[in-house]
Amino acid sequence: MREAIRKFIGIDLGGTNIAVGIVDEKGNILHEGSTPTLPGRPFEDIVKDIANCALTTLEQAQIPLSQIESIGVGIPGIADHHTGVILFCTNLGWRNEPFREVFQKYIDKPIFFGNDATVAGFAESIIGVSKDCASSVFLTLGTGVGGGIILNGKPWEGHHGTGSEIGHVTLVAGGEPCTCGKRGCLERYCSATALIRMGNEGIMMKPNTVLNEMRNGDPALLTGKMVIDAAKEGDAVAVEVFSQYITYLTTAINTIITFLDPEMIVLGGGVSKAGDFLLEAIKAELPKYLLYEGVPYAEIKIAQLGGTAGIVGAAMLGYAFTK
Amino acid sequence: MREAIRKFIGIDLGGTNIAVGIVDEKGNILHEGSTPTLPGRPFEDIVKDIANCALTTLEQAQIPLSQIESIGVGIPGIADHHTGVILFCTNLGWRNEPFREVFQKYIDKPIFFGNDATVAGFAESIIGVSKDCASSVFLTLGTGVGGGIILNGKPWEGHHGTGSEIGHVTLVAGGEPCTCGKRGCLERYCSATALIRMGNEGIMMKPNTVLNEMRNGDPALLTGKMVIDAAKEGDAVAVEVFSQYITYLTTAINTIITFLDPEMIVLGGGVSKAGDFLLEAIKAELPKYLLYEGVPYAEIKIAQLGGTAGIVGAAMLGYAFTK
Repeated sequence: MREAIRKFIGIDLGGTNIAVGIVDEKGNILHEGSTPTLPGRPFEDIVKDIANCALTTLEQAQIPLSQIESIGVGIPGIADHHTGVILFCTNLGWRNEPFREVFQKYIDKPIFFGNDATVAGFAESIIGVSKDCASSVFLTLGTGVGGGIILNGKPWEGHHGTGSEIGHVTLVAGGEPCTCGKRGCLERYCSATALIRMGNEGIMMKPNTVLNEMRNGDPALLTGKMVIDAAKEGDAVAVEVFSQYITYLTTAINTIITFLDPEMIVLGGGVSKAGDFLLEAIKAELPKYLLYEGVPYAEIKIAQLGGTAGIVGAAMLGYAFTK
Repeated sequence: MREAIRKFIGIDLGGTNIAVGIVDEKGNILHEGSTPTLPGRPFEDIVKDIANCALTTLEQAQIPLSQIESIGVGIPGIADHHTGVILFCTNLGWRNEPFREVFQKYIDKPIFFGNDATVAGFAESIIGVSKDCASSVFLTLGTGVGGGIILNGKPWEGHHGTGSEIGHVTLVAGGEPCTCGKRGCLERYCSATALIRMGNEGIMMKPNTVLNEMRNGDPALLTGKMVIDAAKEGDAVAVEVFSQYITYLTTAINTIITFLDPEMIVLGGGVSKAGDFLLEAIKAELPKYLLYEGVPYAEIKIAQLGGTAGIVGAAMLGYAFTK
């Protein structure tokens, strides 16, 4: 008799939509569903909707709940794995919410939690670009910078569940103020937001640039993509800004190499859409920083999975921690 | 019949002396020996002396070589675990030396390598202050800053063996030039050397300080201990320098927490001899930096083991990677 394929549910807690996926042990999505988050409602109502969405998705897929081993939840924040309490979930305004207790009223299965960048990086390590890597670090270069650490095939979020917050590692002690209250955090220099800030600063110094036209003279309209596109076209200001950004990002990548030396570093998030233009700039700069000349170091690659990485990685938490 | 206790040999490759220890599976040193390094000699001669020292130590301990499972070598540098070649060993001037091949001519046992800070941190996690911690990070605050990462009871040195070099993580992008060729490395701000540099800078600004008397007016005579002793006594310049040092060191400790979130962070090396004076200053400052308010974080402790940590940790590499 063929052994049954193990199945899991993954939940991606977004501020606008909550995505649910039934995922098999290989990381394949068998069926997907979603429900609007409508944040600001009572915590219990949102959790009830998530559970109902999961049950509806199972029904549509004609998979009985009894076949589901566990539930994984990817959150932009942290949870206490022992108590099942979500300690911080910024985009939903949650603080110390008893997720497991409430959710298990509807679906009584083991629940695992993971930081959103961690589960996305974990998904990449199962079915994406870092597949078969024993260790990898995932960096999302978006509004902020998120980090995911995968060691020996499992997500590493630390002893108290607060690790892998690479965006808040100090890159410039005493530097730019960060939303977290500290100064000089890596995400102040390596996010899309940083690229935009540096772009606007560049325009202020030298207004005669195509960048100023692209933003219609309005700093609020500048995007990271505009800076990268203008740099590709050789605009002097954009080239300088992009070069400065690459210096910071390469310093950050070298920090990951120097600290953890993973097999691969995977770049995701908005800035990573620059693809080879970004990678080539990093690879040209990186050797200047490395401590040990001539010794191999992490491959740097662009993430492969899109928006579904969240549900796959979340679902597979149960697989990782029970295999 | 009682099962035999497993035994290992640990070797600590120092620039002046090479220490050898026979260590049991609990981390107890059964017998010790040492031989002068006499650096500058041919590589083969030094390795032959190490092997002879190990054989003599076994003889003195009346332990037959057949009872030894493996050899562990702690090096201030890195080795290729697959080939057994020492890639870099700065204090002995070695580069790409085939240690395993030469050593096994004399003692044909499996050989494991570890960075010196890593094996010291590993020893602490077996019989020292971080005993029973599932994860810990060791920082030596000496002439430079060394790092050792222990995860799930095993040393983590990365996929290519170059990880845990925490002293060369960037703390101040574009900052002080480092001996490694980069700028702004953590060890430029957190080592005893940094404390001395900052002390001399402080004296230059305000020469009317007890620190200037302690160093007899000679910058080359200032030590980290002098700065700490003067700070304890309330000397204004020393207090300010020490406070600045603590800001950098706490930033570095928070980087470790933010990145890896270990159960414990252990401080070793010369500066750690300041003991509670150092710990209390760090603990007063650290909460300002933490990302998640109210969530538990790593305990910070002073290392317990002295100079024998190197041989214990090196010996136990074989235990860690074969259990």
